[in-house]
Amino acid sequence: MTRKTPSLADSVRATGDAVEILDRRVYPFERRWVRCATVEDVAVAIEQMVTQSHGPLFATTAGMALAAREARGAGPGDAAERLRAAGRRLVSTRPTNNHIRDAVRAILQATVDGPLAGASGEELVPAVAEAAAAHDAAYRAGCAALGRNAAGLLPDGARVLTHCWGDAYLIAAVQAAEDLGKRLEFVCTETRPYLQGARLTAATLVEMGYRPTVITDGMVPAALAGGLADVAMVASDRVTMDGHVVNKVGTLAVALAARAFDVPFYVLAHGPDPHSPGIADVEIEHRDGTEVLHALGARTAAEGTVGYYPAFDATPPHLVTRIVTEQGAYAPADLAAAHSLPAGPETALPSGASRS
Amino acid sequence: MTRKTPSLADSVRATGDAVEILDRRVYPFERRWVRCATVEDVAVAIEQMVTQSHGPLFATTAGMALAAREARGAGPGDAAERLRAAGRRLVSTRPTNNHIRDAVRAILQATVDGPLAGASGEELVPAVAEAAAAHDAAYRAGCAALGRNAAGLLPDGARVLTHCWGDAYLIAAVQAAEDLGKRLEFVCTETRPYLQGARLTAATLVEMGYRPTVITDGMVPAALAGGLADVAMVASDRVTMDGHVVNKVGTLAVALAARAFDVPFYVLAHGPDPHSPGIADVEIEHRDGTEVLHALGARTAAEGTVGYYPAFDATPPHLVTRIVTEQGAYAPADLAAAHSLPAGPETALPSGASRS
Repeated sequence: MTRKTPSLADSVRATGDAVEILDRRVYPFERRWVRCATVEDVAVAIEQMVTQSHGPLFATTAGMALAAREARGAGPGDAAERLRAAGRRLVSTRPTNNHIRDAVRAILQATVDGPLAGASGEELVPAVAEAAAAHDAAYRAGCAALGRNAAGLLPDGARVLTHCWGDAYLIAAVQAAEDLGKRLEFVCTETRPYLQGARLTAATLVEMGYRPTVITDGMVPAALAGGLADVAMVASDRVTMDGHVVNKVGTLAVALAARAFDVPFYVLAHGPDPHSPGIADVEIEHRDGTEVLHALGARTAAEGTVGYYPAFDATPPHLVTRIVTEQGAYAPADLAAAHSLPAGPETALPSGASRS
Repeated sequence: MTRKTPSLADSVRATGDAVEILDRRVYPFERRWVRCATVEDVAVAIEQMVTQSHGPLFATTAGMALAAREARGAGPGDAAERLRAAGRRLVSTRPTNNHIRDAVRAILQATVDGPLAGASGEELVPAVAEAAAAHDAAYRAGCAALGRNAAGLLPDGARVLTHCWGDAYLIAAVQAAEDLGKRLEFVCTETRPYLQGARLTAATLVEMGYRPTVITDGMVPAALAGGLADVAMVASDRVTMDGHVVNKVGTLAVALAARAFDVPFYVLAHGPDPHSPGIADVEIEHRDGTEVLHALGARTAAEGTVGYYPAFDATPPHLVTRIVTEQGAYAPADLAAAHSLPAGPETALPSGASRS
């Protein structure tokens, strides 16, 4: 397969002494890499939306490897505590998506919270790097499986309406559909205020050889009424065990429109979050409202106004046709049974991680 | 009443030899007046969105008065034909809203298609100016009546979610609510791509003493889920006799969200259009899709994409709680009976106006 990797599929890179992150706030208009010399730099970059969607996962695994290098000279107990502190700092950056929490937990459990409980800083450097790489690889493998399951739902010739930026999930689904010989078309909501749809999704689909149609976020019902799309497919930042979908704000608007026009609404997710039985267990991040009053740095709203910016919304199960996970595609009501896990360390919260 | 008139309530002005129109594409960031020396200039200004919402009505009446002055030296038949041609040009600018068509018809019927059928150009100048002023005054009086009817629906303390820019309808409703001593709060969708909500509605409400909250177009369900608003109230570009509401694209998304969260959805309209029995009788204007790929002139979407820009959408009657007209507030099913007109000249199409 000589398929070209889209730019955003490889947008975090570890250099010898730093982590470099492609700045998604300006991509594709500028290709700017933000250099993070410390774990704190990585955390601030995530908080400031230098990267988003699946980017924070890779920033987190690279950040943990960087933290181990920072603690190279520390003794056993001190090195472990510094790694855990780095993990807590990264988990604190954004509360809604599981990726950061899960990546930190996996790396700690493979090292200082597991077999390397008594290791020195020097010993932890390669071990954490290895655990980070293993988590990245497992994540990418999961995306590929999920993508194949999603592709199975799409008819040949499907016109797919997307919201925000589905990142590795979307790329995997499109590539799997191509592998099956299916032709696809795309309609992308622009996804204000950050315009991830108009910039990141659209640019990536263009890289992959498509010519997506961009609409404003308010046009979804009009686009469905006009027959522009016959499937809605979004990613998710968290799915609860009872089938609530937490994703970029505006997703619920897409789901309501899909229902009104009898268009299937598919959600891509690695799997439901065992720590989120219901929507009350999910903290919805609210960001600075002034971001809503601007577009790409330019003021868009009159002075004297205030902005409101819930970063995510929650789509209830009754609006969701299928949730597509690594395991398969499920009606929301069937999700929990298909993904129930045995009680044990895997379902316990890591020390230091809050139930948020 | 020493109430200050909001800037946008008086945004078209006739000078001795021209019509000046406040440029709503840049307001409130710039206060730029576009000078139209001819009827053609006025028509182009409307087409290019220098003014919108109720602005084209006032631009049309001022434009017709300008056309009469342009034809001052013409003889009886020629002057009348030049006025009718000016009317056709203005009606051709934007197909969905009735305002332009109705203004042209009223002025022609008061002059060359009525009692002044044989008048010279010289005689038509004051007559057309008078008919134009009468149409403006009747329109403003209708808005005031409609505003009082809308204010009656709003509870004291109502938090009102708006979409796009309701112009004179919204100003009248707010002023009437104030006259009743009601306190109001506002949430404004920004209304991409032109940002009428973030700019025009928000700036006008700030002028009127409010501090509106601005949200992106995709945040309406999240805002209602968050309890930010308890009423949705929008204007309309056309309402059909059977209660379909044609208004700025995104209105249907607001209506779907309002229904999902059990929030009343009120629509402001002078009245239903007797020439539009149903939605099939309304032409939905599609504008240049490249406008969707920009915000305030700056590129927002990746290269290689195409934009889709239906300027309006159609909200079906079952999603509408009340349509508020000059006469009262009606459930959509009661609208036609309440506004049925006797057959006669008032319900006939003017010569030259198409049934669009």
